[in-house]
Amino acid sequence: MKIFSIVSILALVLGTAPVALGEDSNSATSPEDSSSLKYVEFSQMGNPAEVLEVKVDNARALQSGEIRVKVLATPIHPSNLLQISGMYAIAPELPSTPGSEGVGQVIETSAEVTHLAVGQWVLLVGGGTWRDQIVAPAASFIPLPDLGTPSSEMIEQLSMTAVNPLSALLMLTSFVDLKEGDWLVHSAANSAVGGYIIQLAKQRGIKTVNVVRREGLAEDLMSKGGDVVLIDGPDLVAQIASATDNTPIALGIDAVGGKTFTRLAQSLGDGGTLVSYGVMSGKPVTLNPAMLIFNDIRIRGFWLSKWFETAAMTEKQAAFGQIIPLVISGALKANVDSRFTVSEIKQAVERAAQSGRNGKVLIVPDGQ
Amino acid sequence: MKIFSIVSILALVLGTAPVALGEDSNSATSPEDSSSLKYVEFSQMGNPAEVLEVKVDNARALQSGEIRVKVLATPIHPSNLLQISGMYAIAPELPSTPGSEGVGQVIETSAEVTHLAVGQWVLLVGGGTWRDQIVAPAASFIPLPDLGTPSSEMIEQLSMTAVNPLSALLMLTSFVDLKEGDWLVHSAANSAVGGYIIQLAKQRGIKTVNVVRREGLAEDLMSKGGDVVLIDGPDLVAQIASATDNTPIALGIDAVGGKTFTRLAQSLGDGGTLVSYGVMSGKPVTLNPAMLIFNDIRIRGFWLSKWFETAAMTEKQAAFGQIIPLVISGALKANVDSRFTVSEIKQAVERAAQSGRNGKVLIVPDGQ
Repeated sequence: MKIFSIVSILALVLGTAPVALGEDSNSATSPEDSSSLKYVEFSQMGNPAEVLEVKVDNARALQSGEIRVKVLATPIHPSNLLQISGMYAIAPELPSTPGSEGVGQVIETSAEVTHLAVGQWVLLVGGGTWRDQIVAPAASFIPLPDLGTPSSEMIEQLSMTAVNPLSALLMLTSFVDLKEGDWLVHSAANSAVGGYIIQLAKQRGIKTVNVVRREGLAEDLMSKGGDVVLIDGPDLVAQIASATDNTPIALGIDAVGGKTFTRLAQSLGDGGTLVSYGVMSGKPVTLNPAMLIFNDIRIRGFWLSKWFETAAMTEKQAAFGQIIPLVISGALKANVDSRFTVSEIKQAVERAAQSGRNGKVLIVPDGQ
Repeated sequence: MKIFSIVSILALVLGTAPVALGEDSNSATSPEDSSSLKYVEFSQMGNPAEVLEVKVDNARALQSGEIRVKVLATPIHPSNLLQISGMYAIAPELPSTPGSEGVGQVIETSAEVTHLAVGQWVLLVGGGTWRDQIVAPAASFIPLPDLGTPSSEMIEQLSMTAVNPLSALLMLTSFVDLKEGDWLVHSAANSAVGGYIIQLAKQRGIKTVNVVRREGLAEDLMSKGGDVVLIDGPDLVAQIASATDNTPIALGIDAVGGKTFTRLAQSLGDGGTLVSYGVMSGKPVTLNPAMLIFNDIRIRGFWLSKWFETAAMTEKQAAFGQIIPLVISGALKANVDSRFTVSEIKQAVERAAQSGRNGKVLIVPDGQ
């Protein structure tokens, strides 16, 4: 495993909240063929396959402190599709370019930028990554260690570092102090976050009950390090009790809502915490307060954006400092379903919205 | 206000979990007229007015370390009625005598008991208080300071010390660190616990939104120190926002469940905690997980029995040490609806089960 210190540089970059990475279309100077610079934009909310447009822009000259980064991979997350559809907690300011993270390489720096050179690999963290190139202040990017000539697989995995692995790590460690040998239960175990939870738990000797909604996923989840894979249904609580030999479970993590949420809560031991980070079913949750009172079940929610806003710098440094080396070493990875270019964004979002996928849809440069 | 130190003695008495205070009906010796010693018992669960029986017992001689206490007031709590009905989290071992707290006076001690003398006032904490006399180890009782010749009002108020004021104090202080000027919102504000919450909050300069389910209660709740009294309904969330001038509320306390629980949760500010301690409506709760995720609403439950089991001795000492002087000084009190003797237990529980009451039903000795 490559070891590197990201701490001093994170102190620079993480002081800024995730920023909108925009380009000014009125500028004229271009260091590349302008016609090749595409980006995705929507000026009204709705079905992503309908409202997203591919636009072409002129590259503009860098301003003081800015760098130009070629985007080499950027994922399509469910939260991106929800925001485009107008179903997310925060409405975008229109017109808007979607995308919340990615990986890229510096292709130009302004004179004032000393800590980043052309050729440097960086993580993109913030809004508006679905584009060929990004121009933004150097402090908006997280520099990566020397990757040599990274494989396309490593590039793809790095493009998914800042959202899901971080969410998995924080949900695994922030709410309950799990010890080696403890169990956790989580739903949507075949989601990207679910996969990272399995891998991070396995590394800590924590056992996972992995709940999914269809057959055929057990092999993949067991190969990631899962201990038990169960299909959600009316007997889920009994199945979990049986699979864990009635061991009290201290942590549940739910991304589904509806009955799944309730079943996970019912599976916890006294004093257990259920953390919700998604509502894939779109359904509200029904709870009997007696469970809260007599079993001391604790209900929490997790939202990464809030964490980025409120966490202390040292927490951010610690979290990225744990995650990035694991992604680079290959110890932490997610499945990739398919790859599309910016020009193919409509097919890309249609694929990302399909059920039955088993991996992320990525946006990558032309010709890869 | 009378000040006294309960700490050293609590160290003796609170080491024991609440105990079942039973008498052995096979013993023969009696220091009083046996025929006057009545107690309540049920040998099957069901409607309290049907299954409760008044029994007469012979007093038995004290064993080593025991004392005999004359019960001078003991309340009927909703949890008592639920347990008799078989609808409580813990089923009683049958036959069982109900009652979870009260106040009494020592009328006989065994030779080994040195810290309690005849005439000493004590709190009863534990199961089985609905009886004329209790024989139990001296360490099962909490000694009170010298009360002189207490008024019947003070005796009645002291009989309700260990359950509701303690619950109110712990819910007010254990979950959220409220500061002077902060708001809290609670339902069933006209319940006994609700009344204590208002009084304890007022003493701390914390403002209360008091939610009730019927008209005619505002004057009483305002006189206790309440700031705003609102009637529950579909517009409750908007009413609360208006009454508090949209100040973020950090703590909600619910005893109703159903829609009331949800409305209270929706009234909280980001990061707010809703604590549930009852389900008076008998209805489950519907929640949108988005509230947990995006508003960081935290859901907890509170159960005093669990606290008695798990809290450290120092916590128990601190809690009783805060509450008892406030009850004695009259700074903390609850409404009393009516008084019945052990012999009148059926009328007593019928009254306690009626809606529209505005105070506790107490069991008191004959001739008071």
